[in-house]
This record gives sequence, structure tokens and C-alpha cells, in this order.
Amino acid sequence: MGIEGSGSIATLLVTCPDRKGLVAALAQLLYGHGANIVDSDQHTDADVGQFFQRIRFDLSEIHTDRVAVEHGVAEVAQRFGMTVRLRYPEVPTNVAIFVSRYSHCLDDLLWRYRSGELRCVVRLIISNHPDCAEIARHASVPFHVIPVNSEAKGEAEAKALELLTANDIDLLVFARYMQVVSRDFIERYPSRIINIHHSFLPAFVGQKPYHQAFERGVKLIGATAHYATADLDEGPIIEQGVVRISHRDTVDDLIRKGRDLERVVLANAVRMHVEDRVLVVGKRTVVFD
Amino acid sequence: MGIEGSGSIATLLVTCPDRKGLVAALAQLLYGHGANIVDSDQHTDADVGQFFQRIRFDLSEIHTDRVAVEHGVAEVAQRFGMTVRLRYPEVPTNVAIFVSRYSHCLDDLLWRYRSGELRCVVRLIISNHPDCAEIARHASVPFHVIPVNSEAKGEAEAKALELLTANDIDLLVFARYMQVVSRDFIERYPSRIINIHHSFLPAFVGQKPYHQAFERGVKLIGATAHYATADLDEGPIIEQGVVRISHRDTVDDLIRKGRDLERVVLANAVRMHVEDRVLVVGKRTVVFD
Amino acid sequence: MGIEGSGSIATLLVTCPDRKGLVAALAQLLYGHGANIVDSDQHTDADVGQFFQRIRFDLSEIHTDRVAVEHGVAEVAQRFGMTVRLRYPEVPTNVAIFVSRYSHCLDDLLWRYRSGELRCVVRLIISNHPDCAEIARHASVPFHVIPVNSEAKGEAEAKALELLTANDIDLLVFARYMQVVSRDFIERYPSRIINIHHSFLPAFVGQKPYHQAFERGVKLIGATAHYATADLDEGPIIEQGVVRISHRDTVDDLIRKGRDLERVVLANAVRMHVEDRVLVVGKRTVVFD
Amino acid sequence: MGIEGSGSIATLLVTCPDRKGLVAALAQLLYGHGANIVDSDQHTDADVGQFFQRIRFDLSEIHTDRVAVEHGVAEVAQRFGMTVRLRYPEVPTNVAIFVSRYSHCLDDLLWRYRSGELRCVVRLIISNHPDCAEIARHASVPFHVIPVNSEAKGEAEAKALELLTANDIDLLVFARYMQVVSRDFIERYPSRIINIHHSFLPAFVGQKPYHQAFERGVKLIGATAHYATADLDEGPIIEQGVVRISHRDTVDDLIRKGRDLERVVLANAVRMHVEDRVLVVGKRTVVFD
Repeated sequence: MGIEGSGSIATLLVTCPDRKGLVAALAQLLYGHGANIVDSDQHTDADVGQFFQRIRFDLSEIHTDRVAVEHGVAEVAQRFGMTVRLRYPEVPTNVAIFVSRYSHCLDDLLWRYRSGELRCVVRLIISNHPDCAEIARHASVPFHVIPVNSEAKGEAEAKALELLTANDIDLLVFARYMQVVSRDFIERYPSRIINIHHSFLPAFVGQKPYHQAFERGVKLIGATAHYATADLDEGPIIEQGVVRISHRDTVDDLIRKGRDLERVVLANAVRMHVEDRVLVVGKRTVVFD
Repeated sequence: MGIEGSGSIATLLVTCPDRKGLVAALAQLLYGHGANIVDSDQHTDADVGQFFQRIRFDLSEIHTDRVAVEHGVAEVAQRFGMTVRLRYPEVPTNVAIFVSRYSHCLDDLLWRYRSGELRCVVRLIISNHPDCAEIARHASVPFHVIPVNSEAKGEAEAKALELLTANDIDLLVFARYMQVVSRDFIERYPSRIINIHHSFLPAFVGQKPYHQAFERGVKLIGATAHYATADLDEGPIIEQGVVRISHRDTVDDLIRKGRDLERVVLANAVRMHVEDRVLVVGKRTVVFD
Repeated sequence: MGIEGSGSIATLLVTCPDRKGLVAALAQLLYGHGANIVDSDQHTDADVGQFFQRIRFDLSEIHTDRVAVEHGVAEVAQRFGMTVRLRYPEVPTNVAIFVSRYSHCLDDLLWRYRSGELRCVVRLIISNHPDCAEIARHASVPFHVIPVNSEAKGEAEAKALELLTANDIDLLVFARYMQVVSRDFIERYPSRIINIHHSFLPAFVGQKPYHQAFERGVKLIGATAHYATADLDEGPIIEQGVVRISHRDTVDDLIRKGRDLERVVLANAVRMHVEDRVLVVGKRTVVFD
Repeated sequence: MGIEGSGSIATLLVTCPDRKGLVAALAQLLYGHGANIVDSDQHTDADVGQFFQRIRFDLSEIHTDRVAVEHGVAEVAQRFGMTVRLRYPEVPTNVAIFVSRYSHCLDDLLWRYRSGELRCVVRLIISNHPDCAEIARHASVPFHVIPVNSEAKGEAEAKALELLTANDIDLLVFARYMQVVSRDFIERYPSRIINIHHSFLPAFVGQKPYHQAFERGVKLIGATAHYATADLDEGPIIEQGVVRISHRDTVDDLIRKGRDLERVVLANAVRMHVEDRVLVVGKRTVVFD
């Protein structure tokens, strides 16, 4: 459930210093093994001299085997100083969703998950409140309440980490999880925690962004999905969206309109990540959409 | 040229503390004079307890005269503590455009002006550079170069003020005018200077917002038209727009895409202002569009 | 549940031939009863010479009573040939949702309903398939399966009508209900059936609009919420939305992207209707948003 | 003037039946000549089994010469049944703009051209009216009036063709050119005539689309840039845009709002074409943006 059938297509993500011959080397390698490239996207960031590529190739007609392909990729990677990530179709991303009381993002993610939109397995939901238990049950996903209080924050995080490890979690999604998480926790999952912030970053960082937006009198409000980093609201942005507002809209209207935005923006970011479409370069992201 | 013919329609803009009977009083008054209300828009800001209204009414069948209508409006205004602005159709807004070297906003405003989109008269263009002289000439609008250097800023502003006064200017449009103007200058034209800032305020205030946006890795860039106040980039926002960008876009692409945005956002703000659709309430605006 | 508390605010919707004194008459009337107008929106359609107004007024301080207000409204209505609709805050719209197999619009409407976004009561859900029973149960809304087959269509409609009458239904929402309904059925609920069509009408009427859109190679796809009329896909449009697509998108991608659009567009249309913001003028609508 | 300096970058556009080894063959070839691939985009249309690629490569360090590269490309092309188009940086597209009386699209294209946004040379402007002569003069582009009347249509087209041939024109842009052109004329420039239609195709084909849109009561209006084909308004779509409208907008407002859309949509389509980003596949386009 929740995983699109693209049975024989593997995905290769590559990052390395830019130089001649990169494209040829990988294409030649895959061709040599009989793998057909069905999709390829590349980008060169001239600013930092880095090369990025996402290749999807068909394994169904290779005349060697996976081990041989992996060997070949590793050799090319070493030659060019590449960081590579190779994902086989039957190995989906294991996801844990963190939520507090607001349920709209969770609800939306689970609906998409059940309808097969997200190529992942939602292994568990963690919350500091019991409120969303019924939603989790409705989607047949295990739900764990880990209360958080300021004195025993470390204890709560330790419990969460235990669950994450036990479930072999690859990606954490903070779906309006209203707790500040420690630097240590975040650094265990570099570029693997997606947070939704309910403003158009870098505008309105911090608390109550809709109230801030109302005070400032902006004519559009936004939402931002980004990788969590130790510096709050400073992580690499994956996706953003905006919606028009007017003087007729109260703070409550902003919150209502924002909800629609948050769930779409977060869902898009999660989809991009689990389809291996996102690469991080400093504070920016390359999103092969 | 540049003024739509809506020959007999007057516009009344009203601001006052909210209370019962406001709508009835004005409607009754206009009806009493035989004026048909062709359009009416109102808003109550519950936060500050203020009432705002824009009424357009037809003068062609009044059975008194303009003086009598004005008298009546003044009386109602006094009774309810209203600030009112009454504009007759034959009295358009006199506009001065300030520009530096970038011509896209000026070019666009003049094109709209000549095609009759903007209900105003562009009386003159002031620039600290001679670059846009030909564009002004093409549109048959007087062009004045007033060089600005940091030592003699006051002198330059004095010259500009003289021109503005001599031409009876109601509205100043800073169409990418790259000079900081003194507090004194700005306060002479409260809510009557429209500036375009090339970012989605309050994100990326100050210099080189497209470079800032690129550095931060945002996925949308914006433009903001606002009334200039003494606090830079803090004035009440009239209009904002955004456009999607991706990792493929360089700073130059941002600048190019942003240009399209800037000119549309600025033109919309100017159009709203000259059609008497904008009211200011603190740092926010009511825009009856 | 599902109804915003705006305890003492009544809503008056007015349509009539345009003439002088309309605004004054209603404003004066309400003022006379001590009702404060908190919001008013009006529109004159010059093409057809019709006047439209939506007035929200506060009943909490009237010094007469509701009967007297109603009397007064009726008198003014007769004098000016007005069609009026007066709604008190405690009388919400009773809604029936019709659905087939696709659950996304139903799911979304119910989520908004439970979170208090929609000022209505969803009294029942009718479907020609049992698939969505669990979703209905999760939201505690009665779910009725009425199978439809071409021979006994009349019978199925009769059953549905019985349920609608028994539940005093004001508004029918066709949330991707894949059955053609008889002219007779539709004409019982004029401007009271909202349908979502998964294209940007009038483009791609009829079956499989996403397939049609793919074939035609459009760069944007759309969704349209409209009142159902006897002429399929020809009813007055309440709301439309679009989303960008590219050559990379397959028909399946169009369906996925379209789902997000459909649910937002339908929800907006329903919200507008149940807040008495929509008036129909021929094939067009006035939406006071 | 009007051409971005990307001095040593050549662009290769490829279309062919999909099969293994395509990517490798081209990458290997270019690497063999010492050309660095700076950008590459590809697409496989599963429906028709076609492969499309756009490769930009740097010629500055090749250790053979252009003739050798061309030779190599031709060989690979023959082996795989490729249709290829190779453009060197110093050979820009020669453009002719056709216009009638409405000047907004012409004005906008010329402004972009002069500011260096469009990698082309606008060699001439042809019109059936003298109205836009001054705009052409302002941009220093030759302006030719060729009156068209229904009896002598062939004659007018013959004159136009003569000018196009004499000026070695690659691309014709119909910037609101209000004349129906013969099938014969159109077929001389397959996928090389870009037309702007002022609706969201396939909605509102034919005459007066804004009037049609108003009548139908849509909530968004659109504009479509497409290649002209013998079947009116049926050509492959390159770019589309929409803008929101409401019941307040008259037909004149639609025309005004539409103008802003038309010029942006047309300019984007022209930019995509002159940067060799567009490939046609039946009635659809692949746009590598």
C-alpha cells in the first residue's frame, strides 16, 4: 500500500565537483550493462562548481546483475569523487510523521499515502498529544504518544529515537509538530527531517506567523517546507506556496487559507523527497521535478 | 489622454470610527439629491474599530447641484467624525514618476498611461540620470534630470519639490528610483508616494533583494508596491505578487523574472490609487478592488 | 459541529431591477430597527440592469423584533420588486453529499466540515457504491447506498428524493458523483446543486477531461464548480482553479494534480454558497467573496 | 543588440525513436571531442515511443574542430534515426513580427528585445495597418505596411513571403495579427509561426474570446501561445497563462487584464523557441524550461 508500481526502475542520485566526461561516464556504464536510461535530469551550479544528476534506469533487461551494476557505479563514483545514492524500486522510504494537535497536515498526508500518491511506507506517527489517535487508527498506522515537558525533553527525544531506530526510519516529517527539537536530534538526520513552516520564509520566522502577517498587512501569505537544521527556520527550502489575501481577511481567515497551503506544500516536499528528487547544496536545494 | 471616460461618476472615500447608521446616512443623503449609487464597497476593521467606504455615484440626474451635495456630505461627515475625499470625474490625479537607470517600470507605466488604463495625468518624470530621456520623449512627457550626490542631497530634493509644486502633483511613483529620500521629503506626501520594492516584503528588505533571495534558496520571488514612509520598506503594502523560480535560475534569471513582476505589481498599485480604491489604516491598507 | 459561531448576525441577499434609492431604502430600514450593518457588498450588472446586494447586520441591539424586521424587509422588497433571502445565524444550510467511488472530494469536505470551516450541517451522504461507507462513518454522517442502473434510474432518484425531503435538504453537493441525473430531478433544486467538473470549463466538457487535456497538450489543467442545470456542464460557474503541467506529466499525473485542485475548488464553492455569497444571473454568478 | 552573450555554448536538439544507448552515444561523442556538457534535458514520450533531448555544450576547449563535431553528430544521428538541430551561439534566430492595430504585444516584445532578454534578431515588422510605425521606429526595426483585402489576399502574402525570404527569417511571431493566413503560407513555416490567442485554448476558439468568456461567466481568463497550423487554434501549445476575474469585471476589464497575460505568455513562448527549448510531438510540445 502506498507504493506506486514502477517495478524495475532504479534511481541514481549523484553529486560531485563539475568536470568534463561525467555524463558520458555514467551513461556509458549503464549502457554497458544493458540498462536503459528512462529519465535523466542534471544541473550544474556554477556558483559552487558542483554537478548534480538524477538518473532513472530500467533494470529489467540488464545482461549482468545488480551486484555488477553497483560495482560499476562505485568505480565511476570513485574516479570522479561522486557522492551517489542508488535506490531499487522495492525499497521504499520508511517515514515517521510527527504531529501535535493540528491535524490537517497529518490528515492530508495519510489520505495521499492511502491513495498511493506517496512512494513510501508510513511506519509510525509520534505525537506529544493523544488528539490525533483516531486519525492514525483510521489509516491503520501505529500511533505513539510521547509527552514533552521542558524538564525532561531529553528523555522524550530518547524515546522517539528508539522508535525511529527500531522502525528503520529514513525520513521524519514534522507535520505541524509544535516542539523545538534539540540540535543533537536534528543532526542525526541531516537533510532527512522535513518541516512545514506556516509562512513564506524568510518572512515571519518564529512564532505565530499568521498573526505577524496580519499585523504587517501583507497581501499574500505563504507556507514553506524545508529540511530542519539546528538554526530554526534556516534550513534548505524544498517547496513554497502562497495564496492571496485581502483586508477582508481576519487572522482566522489567514489560518484557514494557510491550512490549505500548508498541506499542499508539505505533501509536495515529501513526495519530492521520497522520489529521490531533492539534493542539498549549502542552504539551497536542487529539486528535479 | 490616459483618462477613461466615466463622465458623470463621482467617487467618495470615507473613513471614520464605526457606529450604527453610517451607511444609511450617506445613502439617504445621496438619494435625497437624486444621485444614483452605482457602486459601493465598505469594510469594518474590527481590530481598530474603523469603518471604510468607497461610494461611486452618478451626478447626471441630481436635482440640486454639486455645491449642495458637497454641503450635505460635509454635514454628515461632521456628524459622524468622518474623513472624506470627494473626487469629480474631470479632476484626475496628477502624477510624477521618479526613475533612475532601470527603465522597465517606467516604460510599462507609460505604455499603460498612453493606452488609457490609468485614470491620471503623468505631468513629469524626474530622474537622477539622463538614460530614460528618450522613453519620456516617446511618450511626450516632460523629463527632468536632477543629479543627486550625497553632499548636496537637500538641494536636489528642493529642486524636485519645486517641480512637484509647480505641477500640482498629487501622487509620486518611485519606479525603481534608486535614491534614499529624506524623511522630510516623504512626510510632505503621506500615503502619496508609491514605491516598488523588488522582493516579497518583509522578506529581503534593503539592498540587492534578488541576490539575497538567490542566497537563501527560496522557491518563489516577489515584488511589493507600498506607500513610502520614513522607515524604509516598512510602509503600508498596496499590492504584492510572486513568481516561481527553481534551482536552474541564476541571479540574472531572478532579475529578469522579477522585472515582469515589478511592473505588473507597480502598475496595479498605481491604478488602485488613482481610482481612489486605497485607504490606509496604520501599517495596513484597505484596497477596494 | 461544523457551524461557526457568529451568533447574532443575519444575512440578507437581494436581487432586483436597478433603480435609485435601493441602497438608501434598505440601510434606512435596518437603521430604523436598530440593526448595525456589519458588512455590505453590492453589484450592478449593467448588461441586464439588475442590482445585487448582500447585507450582514447585527440583530443583538435591535429595538423592535425579528417579526418587525421581516415585515419591514418584505415591504421594501415589494416596493422595489426585490427577490430577498433572509437567513438567521442559527439556521444553517442542510447539505447532502452525493459521491461515487472517488473519495478525495468527500474526504476533503468532511474534514473541513468537522474542523468548522463550513457553515452547514452535512445531514447525509448518498452513493451508488458502498466504497465510501467507512469515510462517512469516521465523520459520523449517515451513509445511504442507492445503486443506480440504467433501467431503474427513476426508482433510484425517487429514493434519493425521499431522503432529501425527509432530511430537509437545502443544498446538494455532487462530489465526483458519476451519474447523470434527470432533468426533472435537477429542476427541483434550481441553483441548489453544486457539481465539480474536472476541467476548466468550457474546455473539455463531458467524459474523461484529463485524457482530453493530455491529448490536446495544454499547459494548465483546471477544475470548475458550478450549479447543475439540465444542460450538462453548462450551469453557472461559481469557482475555477488551474494548475500548471508540463510534458513530463502523464495522464496519471494530471489526475493526481487535478485531485488537489478539485477538492479546493469544490470546497470554496460550497463555502461561498452556505455563507449566502452567491447569486445567479442567467449563466453567470455574482460571488461576494 | 538583443543577444545574450553565451559565447562558446552550442545547443543540440534531438528527436528520435526511443531505444537503449542514445544518451551514452551522444555523451561519449561530445566527450571524445573535448566538449563539456553544461546542460542536458531529456524526455521520453511513452505514448509515442519518442525520445527528445536538448544538450548545451561548451565548444571552447574542443581538441578537434566544429566540422569534426558536426560530422560526429551526423554519424550518430544516422545510426539512431535522429532528427537533429545544432545551433552555434553566434547564429541567432531571425524574427519577423506580424501585427495589426493592437500594439501591446509588439511593444512588449520590442522592449524585451532591446533589453537583451530575447536571443534573436528582430529583422522586420509587417503590419496590415500603419498604426504601429512609430513603435517600430522607436526600436529601430524596419516596418512594412502590407494592406490586406479579401480579394487580393494572395498578393499580400506573396509580398510578405518576399520580405521573409530576403531577410532570411526563421521565426514568425503573430503578435495579435488579426488576419487569417492561407494554409499554403502556414505550411511553409512548420512549427516556426508562433501565434497568441487571447483565450485559454481549447476554450473560446475563434472570434472575440473575451466576449465569449464574459457571456459564459468564467472565473478565470487565459491566453495561449501556440504554433500556427492550417487548422485554426488547433496548433501545438507552447505556453498558457490565466488570471482571475470576478463578476465586477466588464468585457473591457477582461480585455485590459487579458493584455497583461497575452504579452507575458507570448514573450515566454518566443523566448523558449529562440533558445531552442521547444520540440513538437503531434499536437503536443516538449518545452525544456
